[in-house]
Amino acid sequence: MGSGRIARTFADAIEHSARARLVAISSRTPDRPDIAARFGGLPVLSYEALIASPEIDAVYIAVNHAGHVGLAKAAARAGKHIVCEKPVGVSLADVEEMFAVIGESKVFFMEAFMYRFHPQIRRAVEIVEAGTIGDLRFIQAEYGFSRPFSSHRLYRPDEYGGGVLDAGGYPMSMARLFAGLARRAPFANPESVQAMAAFHEVGVDILALATLRFPGDVLAQISTGIAMKHGQVARLYGTGGNLVIRSPWFGGGIHGGRCELVLTRDGEEPQTIVIYDDVWLYEHEVNALIDGVAAGRTEPEAPAMTWADTLGNMAALERWYRASRKTQA
Amino acid sequence: MGSGRIARTFADAIEHSARARLVAISSRTPDRPDIAARFGGLPVLSYEALIASPEIDAVYIAVNHAGHVGLAKAAARAGKHIVCEKPVGVSLADVEEMFAVIGESKVFFMEAFMYRFHPQIRRAVEIVEAGTIGDLRFIQAEYGFSRPFSSHRLYRPDEYGGGVLDAGGYPMSMARLFAGLARRAPFANPESVQAMAAFHEVGVDILALATLRFPGDVLAQISTGIAMKHGQVARLYGTGGNLVIRSPWFGGGIHGGRCELVLTRDGEEPQTIVIYDDVWLYEHEVNALIDGVAAGRTEPEAPAMTWADTLGNMAALERWYRASRKTQA
Repeated sequence: MGSGRIARTFADAIEHSARARLVAISSRTPDRPDIAARFGGLPVLSYEALIASPEIDAVYIAVNHAGHVGLAKAAARAGKHIVCEKPVGVSLADVEEMFAVIGESKVFFMEAFMYRFHPQIRRAVEIVEAGTIGDLRFIQAEYGFSRPFSSHRLYRPDEYGGGVLDAGGYPMSMARLFAGLARRAPFANPESVQAMAAFHEVGVDILALATLRFPGDVLAQISTGIAMKHGQVARLYGTGGNLVIRSPWFGGGIHGGRCELVLTRDGEEPQTIVIYDDVWLYEHEVNALIDGVAAGRTEPEAPAMTWADTLGNMAALERWYRASRKTQA
Repeated sequence: MGSGRIARTFADAIEHSARARLVAISSRTPDRPDIAARFGGLPVLSYEALIASPEIDAVYIAVNHAGHVGLAKAAARAGKHIVCEKPVGVSLADVEEMFAVIGESKVFFMEAFMYRFHPQIRRAVEIVEAGTIGDLRFIQAEYGFSRPFSSHRLYRPDEYGGGVLDAGGYPMSMARLFAGLARRAPFANPESVQAMAAFHEVGVDILALATLRFPGDVLAQISTGIAMKHGQVARLYGTGGNLVIRSPWFGGGIHGGRCELVLTRDGEEPQTIVIYDDVWLYEHEVNALIDGVAAGRTEPEAPAMTWADTLGNMAALERWYRASRKTQA
């Protein structure tokens, strides 16, 4: 559902998978001829027609953020399993209401944080859980990218543009994941969220910073931005060393490949840990959906995004979004 | 004045310099035999005797922070030029009062931020001023180190222990330096300071974070800590690239040597800029004092710490210190 760039990328992952078949595309404007052309001549349906189609077992929702929740509820009511782009919604209340509907429908639902499936994350989780860097005390996570000003959703306040409700979910969810591990839980939610941001004149945040305090006094500094390439990195600092995830969001790329963790234990030289992934990045999501449905589950297993993790991330993003606006000059 | 580790290091720099001569040490406990032994048998005087000595042109103050201001005022009244360890004081009011006294005395005074003299800082300043990374928008600066718990001043709340009023002055002054350059000024002071910290049970901050907004919407994330080696790095992000100062506080070491900046312009490969310094790090301070006095100046030239820069840094540190305590669990 949706025909933008990420939909095209996800379609590639489905086509690359031997386990799923892409049946149809759907769009708000199904009659646009370029959509069918971009998706290999597949049927392009309206959202309603796609959801009503008996041929379809599962949907992937990649429309603008504000449209996610409505389509997810409609799809769930029709018994379709769901992978939904992030953030699932633009307010916690909307997402809570959505989960109430999905819970009734007993379908599988997963927020599409593909990075959680990458083997480097599982490896980083193991390293932290093993105590290799001591007690985790401080997390830094960043996702800044540069997109020139345009009429794109990112620069539209009415479409919840800006970084916090776009790439901001990445560093927030990464900090929450590892802050949870510090307490032997699959995630943690911040006790306090401080935020500061710089805004474009149209009113969207172009550089957004947050400082988080988690239970057990684990602190985090996170950032996102849409107008400048700053870091795309995650760093985990413990009482006995640190671990840097050098390419935390895409690993070696969307078609798999090689990436690196750098582990430094106090008093030792930094150690580079090479991670290979043979699976395409978004194909992991296809697999998680199929495996989850086959196992009769309604959500993936951590460290992928469970429903509670999605709710916690949405709550934290909402706090970040609101707090950053209070600092607007 | 003072006989601790940094005093010994500074004494080495004086001895290495052909331009100055170390005449005497002073201590609160001048009769302790180990002090003279550690300083090559030089006279060890009381603070009062040192300040009264006609043989002495200038003093270097390296006692505990809370004692800086009192000794600086006494030394200034006796006509001695002053290099004072950082932070100059533990409150803005104290430092303002100190500058009133020093201003009357017409002596040279400099806060000992040695890193400001390193050629890598001058090079970084040139790069930013030339617009090589576009408009500077975001600064990260960190100084975390690990010192085990002990009765040391760092772990004593009554001695203003913790990171903010110790190494915290480094990242704060670095952020202020470059935020100033973004406005063609030698420094800038933050319009707002958000702070969060984790505290040791004795009540000192062991990991302190701050987010700063400077005029022109330049933002910064800074951090310091005394119980865990986290980063010692500064990163400058602009609209056209970024510059990483990999060893911002000590460069290639206290005896000079080689260090690196990494410049990345958007769309280009990262470029390593190698910087050599032939001068010992603390010897720069000796030279600045001698040159300043010879030129009839009362303060060094930017990017070294001018009086206004010291006042601005103290004001910002006080805000950081107070704001972090409000978040104490």
